[in-house]
Amino acid sequence: MQNNKAPIRGFSTKEFETRLANAQKIMQVYQLDSLLVTTPQNIRYFTGYDSQFWESPTRPWFVVIPATSKPIAIVPEIGESEFNKTWLDEILTWPSPRPEDEGVSLLKASLENLKKTHGNVGAEFGKEMTIRMPVKDLEKLRKTINLNIIDGSDALWDIRMVKTNAEIEHIKYICSIASDAYNQLPSKLAIGDTERDVVRKLKIDMLQKGADSVPFMPGISGEGGVSQIVCGPTDKVLNNGDILCIDTGSTYDGYFCDFDRNYAFGEISSEVERIHETLWLATEAGIKAAIPGATTDEVWVAMNTIIQEAGTIGNNVGRLGHGLGLQLTEPPSHRPGDNTRIVENMVLTIEPGMEYAPGKMIVHEENIAITKDGSRLLTKRAPRQMPIIK
Amino acid sequence: MQNNKAPIRGFSTKEFETRLANAQKIMQVYQLDSLLVTTPQNIRYFTGYDSQFWESPTRPWFVVIPATSKPIAIVPEIGESEFNKTWLDEILTWPSPRPEDEGVSLLKASLENLKKTHGNVGAEFGKEMTIRMPVKDLEKLRKTINLNIIDGSDALWDIRMVKTNAEIEHIKYICSIASDAYNQLPSKLAIGDTERDVVRKLKIDMLQKGADSVPFMPGISGEGGVSQIVCGPTDKVLNNGDILCIDTGSTYDGYFCDFDRNYAFGEISSEVERIHETLWLATEAGIKAAIPGATTDEVWVAMNTIIQEAGTIGNNVGRLGHGLGLQLTEPPSHRPGDNTRIVENMVLTIEPGMEYAPGKMIVHEENIAITKDGSRLLTKRAPRQMPIIK
Repeated sequence: MQNNKAPIRGFSTKEFETRLANAQKIMQVYQLDSLLVTTPQNIRYFTGYDSQFWESPTRPWFVVIPATSKPIAIVPEIGESEFNKTWLDEILTWPSPRPEDEGVSLLKASLENLKKTHGNVGAEFGKEMTIRMPVKDLEKLRKTINLNIIDGSDALWDIRMVKTNAEIEHIKYICSIASDAYNQLPSKLAIGDTERDVVRKLKIDMLQKGADSVPFMPGISGEGGVSQIVCGPTDKVLNNGDILCIDTGSTYDGYFCDFDRNYAFGEISSEVERIHETLWLATEAGIKAAIPGATTDEVWVAMNTIIQEAGTIGNNVGRLGHGLGLQLTEPPSHRPGDNTRIVENMVLTIEPGMEYAPGKMIVHEENIAITKDGSRLLTKRAPRQMPIIK
Repeated sequence: MQNNKAPIRGFSTKEFETRLANAQKIMQVYQLDSLLVTTPQNIRYFTGYDSQFWESPTRPWFVVIPATSKPIAIVPEIGESEFNKTWLDEILTWPSPRPEDEGVSLLKASLENLKKTHGNVGAEFGKEMTIRMPVKDLEKLRKTINLNIIDGSDALWDIRMVKTNAEIEHIKYICSIASDAYNQLPSKLAIGDTERDVVRKLKIDMLQKGADSVPFMPGISGEGGVSQIVCGPTDKVLNNGDILCIDTGSTYDGYFCDFDRNYAFGEISSEVERIHETLWLATEAGIKAAIPGATTDEVWVAMNTIIQEAGTIGNNVGRLGHGLGLQLTEPPSHRPGDNTRIVENMVLTIEPGMEYAPGKMIVHEENIAITKDGSRLLTKRAPRQMPIIK
């Protein structure tokens, strides 16, 4: 069913040209003369530039996407030779670190050089985005530049929320690696292991199977469920009756999977079995509801109805799934009021969770790509019965 | 010499009290009624809160450090149960995602509730820092709050640049894990491996030896040296005459090591041997120069003199080392004009590099902790002869 052949790394120039043409159409709607991007995901989306050096916050990196011409990179000298290998023509550099002018004057000149139609530069100011440059430098730029730097996040999400086929193939590949690793995990586990042991084993297996990195892999356990899903692992020993929830955002060539699996240790109660079955069915309902033309609110309702009927007392996650791609989490959100219209080639997580007793939460998650008239699973579906480690 | 026993994870309440008292002293100098922090490193520094969920940019997290009382956490509900385990008393939460008010009103009220002496809130606005919240939300906060939100980065760096002994033990431990993994790597390598193979092997070995994560591990190769040190690995095959440079920022309990090693494949020229020896000596000189009372400029001069004499034609890194701790790179920088006075308990990288022919660069790096009257190596010193893989 799933094909574990690795997609070719990187993307063709044609793909980047298509992304740019699409972006420029959307920029017109938002009356933007250019977009200014500073974060790894946005820079990679438009240029293909890949580096782990984002881990160092010392130097800002800038890419400008003009309304009618190719992106321009304005980057520290340390990045010049690799940026020369991208499809871009214009790479401007400065010797960095240079705190007195960390690329700002070069960026200002580049933006002012562009054709001025609306006088607006769209930047990463809004929804689920942060800007990767010092606020002080941003203020200096805004004070001296002869243009309005406004929020470009709606435009950026319009651009990135719908994936290309090549992007979906990347996500599918990392999903299939994680699916296989999750499926093979029970044979490596035993009562008495620590959460940290288990996460380490799974992380190593993911790397051996072809994941590039595993930036997100919490592992949390508790009797009959967990109180939260974002911290851990700890050195807690896995005992009879524990449920271990492991989630992972692992990457291949920049693209994330994001889904969890639950493992039971020793005996589990019939109540846990009931909740597990409820969430399995809620996932089915979420997958079925996520079709072109539906809204994220409707996907939420489809899952929430089942969870409510089963007696949920809460869920601190605040939503039942979200977008996925170059980031672990992206808009939209399956939650009331999000109201995003689902379209072909979105990639979404379906993530029902419920606290069924105080401090006892179980969460399921799958990743899907929206097709012309429905969706297809990118993950290999979680087993209907929770795997039990004896 | 090095002791590979893992330090206890986390820090005592006494340690956090000491950090807070020190911070409050520094805040007084900068006339700050509070500090507002939003990034993983700063939040962890003051609270001990650890999560991999920072990978998701959907929700902002806030911690306020008042001038005269304990830090206050203002965080999404998803983080509440784990924040309750920290040494903090006041944890405020909101149901997130909630784009119409993503914690901003709660944050505003918390800041305005504090005693007003100077009317200044210090935020992550400056040097080598970015703020982890949407700029739009920051603007909303600044427009409506009855306080000045100003740059607090100088205060934050004054606080974090000098490490506690417990922090240094953490850094030393991850340095010793990476040192051992680097030293054992040659026996696992052969001509014909790809860069990606080698990095994967080393990453897995780091995890097996006890590293929590390996967020930074570029691996780059080239005949006689490399053109850059921040991108890669690729599928390039390692051939006779290649130099492979691997760098790593790996972590233990949140703290980074940051140092590289070079491996030669097959025959290396006497010129490469000369450059390697030059950089080894420049590292010695840098280590010797980094003592309490010296400046970062002087450390730079000590290394640069040797590199210049050996005929460097450049170095796109822009400096010869930097600070290290909860981030892969932190201030100060060994570069002309940085002019930071070195004091006991700073942790620094010593990182001489030189391009000796066009596109052929070699970089060495070690990590040291400044002592009362000198420094001590946290890494196990690179071999004076480059390891040769046949």
